[in-house]
Amino acid sequence: MMALPEENAGEAAPDAMAAAEEEAAAAVESVAEETSGKTGGDRPISTILIVIAMQTEALPLVAKFGLTEDADGSVFPKGVPWVRYHGTYKGLHIDLVWPGKDIILGVDSVGTVSSALLTFASIQALKPDLIINAGTAGGFKAKGACIRDVYLPSHVAFHDRRIPIPVFDLYGIGSRQTFSTPNLIKEVNLKVGRLSTGNSLDMSPQDEASILANDATVKDMEGAAVAYVADLLSVPAIFVKAVTDIVDGDKPTAEEFMQNLIAVTAALDQAVTEVVDFINGKCLYEL
Amino acid sequence: MMALPEENAGEAAPDAMAAAEEEAAAAVESVAEETSGKTGGDRPISTILIVIAMQTEALPLVAKFGLTEDADGSVFPKGVPWVRYHGTYKGLHIDLVWPGKDIILGVDSVGTVSSALLTFASIQALKPDLIINAGTAGGFKAKGACIRDVYLPSHVAFHDRRIPIPVFDLYGIGSRQTFSTPNLIKEVNLKVGRLSTGNSLDMSPQDEASILANDATVKDMEGAAVAYVADLLSVPAIFVKAVTDIVDGDKPTAEEFMQNLIAVTAALDQAVTEVVDFINGKCLYEL
Repeated sequence: MMALPEENAGEAAPDAMAAAEEEAAAAVESVAEETSGKTGGDRPISTILIVIAMQTEALPLVAKFGLTEDADGSVFPKGVPWVRYHGTYKGLHIDLVWPGKDIILGVDSVGTVSSALLTFASIQALKPDLIINAGTAGGFKAKGACIRDVYLPSHVAFHDRRIPIPVFDLYGIGSRQTFSTPNLIKEVNLKVGRLSTGNSLDMSPQDEASILANDATVKDMEGAAVAYVADLLSVPAIFVKAVTDIVDGDKPTAEEFMQNLIAVTAALDQAVTEVVDFINGKCLYEL
Repeated sequence: MMALPEENAGEAAPDAMAAAEEEAAAAVESVAEETSGKTGGDRPISTILIVIAMQTEALPLVAKFGLTEDADGSVFPKGVPWVRYHGTYKGLHIDLVWPGKDIILGVDSVGTVSSALLTFASIQALKPDLIINAGTAGGFKAKGACIRDVYLPSHVAFHDRRIPIPVFDLYGIGSRQTFSTPNLIKEVNLKVGRLSTGNSLDMSPQDEASILANDATVKDMEGAAVAYVADLLSVPAIFVKAVTDIVDGDKPTAEEFMQNLIAVTAALDQAVTEVVDFINGKCLYEL
């Protein structure tokens, strides 16, 4: 696809298309609500898929749920670094996947492309009833986020896919409602807010403007991509995001992140465990 | 994964890691060369996969190669909008795929996530010998690009995945050499340059700096993601990108794009046809 420099991009949007845009936006809302209501099932959830971006976020949960790493007979194609752990925890089948270390560079394969691919392949191979995307995130104190807070986002969207052409702009933002879990939120002490996703760890002024437009309280690098794939394949997905650093704070974030990582990972583990314990034995509509 | 505000991100990179960084960069170069040499095969290429982002770019080639759309028995999972055309052109099996229209919004599913997913699923289902990612792109006149130029990029990289932590930064940029085709370049009159990929149609100052660092002549929204997946699954990939607009020019780009689209699509078609004609009957190492 072509490229527009920022200053001219707006010209691609004739006024005549404003109505079409509004219609499309309304369609998104209405379909999101419909999907959210339709996914309920009459049988208890029997298998869940936990998608995690980083090894340090994944391993404590692998230990907590007593999961085992796949041996040679991987469910994934030859060549990919993706790792699957699986097992039965209190009668519930759990698959936990993370995208592994980049084959050449040896760092966690973070970001939207890896997490989308992993989610797609995992759904195909494992047919989960529900997806939980868990991980750390940056939080905005202006929206009430504090270090160690754990959020269960109500909506996800992208903040680094600016396509300033009518309707394409909405596609780029990719805002969608997460699977609705009113009882879970009541039972487990989690905060609710919106999540915004981008492929950069830092935040450019353009990212910041989009995050503001997305009304986001937390910022990560995978959530909206996992949600996109889950929606494509009609699997309900929820998100558990623990705040390691305050993006709009005055402390150097890298330092803050290092100081808080241990405590926040513990908070994330505890929250995911409470969520899984609540889910266990219930049907989707009971969440 | 957590989030760092831009001004503090640099602090995550202690000096001590500079050596590790250099080593990792060298490893990327060396592995890229190795892969590029290893992919040769002794039998002629028998099946190619053409990945295209937009319907308007795809349809003329579907007609040119006499391809047929998949009926109900799609090779893709239920629910995805992805479209596959296939057929035999001068004895060569061609699959042409595009990610289809967004199910809710009805616009082409452009960008890295859709193209990565589509490429992944297509490789799994269709086992191509070679991938051609074709499409329109923005060009930089400072690097010699003109409207209607068709490029066969030597390298691809991302310009919107800033992760300012040593080694993670290289992962984010994801620079890789494309499959080397010295004879094809000699035979078909295509220009050579580097391609930079991002999820936005516009260009923020941060994007511009990264594109400059990537030494890119053309800018698109899919190439580096297609290359990443092709590399993961060890399928050689080449890229054919036709310039519809000059990103660093003084004309309003949207207007320029509209004025040039017909002529440029024709140039793209012709180039892809010449590339396919050259490939036909040859082994990978002969390209």
